[in-house]
Amino acid sequence: MKVDSAGLRVLSRAECIQLLASTPLGRIVFTDRALPAIQPVNYTLDGDTLVIRTAAGSKLAAAVRDTIVALEADVFDSDGRTGWSVTVVGQAHAVGDVHEVSRLARLPLAPWTSRTAEPAGGADHYIVLPIEQVSGRRVCTHP
Amino acid sequence: MKVDSAGLRVLSRAECIQLLASTPLGRIVFTDRALPAIQPVNYTLDGDTLVIRTAAGSKLAAAVRDTIVALEADVFDSDGRTGWSVTVVGQAHAVGDVHEVSRLARLPLAPWTSRTAEPAGGADHYIVLPIEQVSGRRVCTHP
Repeated sequence: MKVDSAGLRVLSRAECIQLLASTPLGRIVFTDRALPAIQPVNYTLDGDTLVIRTAAGSKLAAAVRDTIVALEADVFDSDGRTGWSVTVVGQAHAVGDVHEVSRLARLPLAPWTSRTAEPAGGADHYIVLPIEQVSGRRVCTHP
Repeated sequence: MKVDSAGLRVLSRAECIQLLASTPLGRIVFTDRALPAIQPVNYTLDGDTLVIRTAAGSKLAAAVRDTIVALEADVFDSDGRTGWSVTVVGQAHAVGDVHEVSRLARLPLAPWTSRTAEPAGGADHYIVLPIEQVSGRRVCTHP
């Protein structure tokens, strides 16, 4: 069992991906007008890629186009003393191909809000994030 | 009730601060070797300032010294369809004054891991983040 300098158990890539698959909600980290920004998103796994659905005209869609982003997911108990956190860092891409959009639309992927399921623009927008760099930690409970 | 373009209810500053006070765990967003980074942290409110406790020699302590960071907290139900998210953006500072460190040590603030409570360096490190810019959204449930 590998433990980092802060006493957190270091998770393997396989453990990280298994944990990512266990929860539908994460937080995407990007830059908005030169400031750090973070927004909750629903995501799903499509092989070795994370898929995020958002509204076509959203700030998120514009901000993360072809940029390096992070996506974090975590689950903690109520007092934050036990749990895990996994972070993926990679280059985000917007999906433009209509056949690929049709395929992604069949994934079990709810948008974060019910209204973005039918955005004013009438179009769903998919952001894909290949799981290039993934890291995760689990809080160890010491007796 | 103000609603944004994605159908999310826009929270007031007072609502944001009340929600921030309701949960001990957030995620701090910073830059690590030019890449977006995010790490869970326990925090507490000290007036209009967020206080984060970490180990003196930690990567986080070094990375967020006198830089603009974001801290996000959220609570969602299991499928991510209802809940809230609040983000603070501001300039983080390390607390150097020993009297101020003594005062902060009396706040009800647990570090994220039990081991960082007594780091190898023997010293606690406090990061303060004035709540300058705060924004929050709540997912509205439509019938």
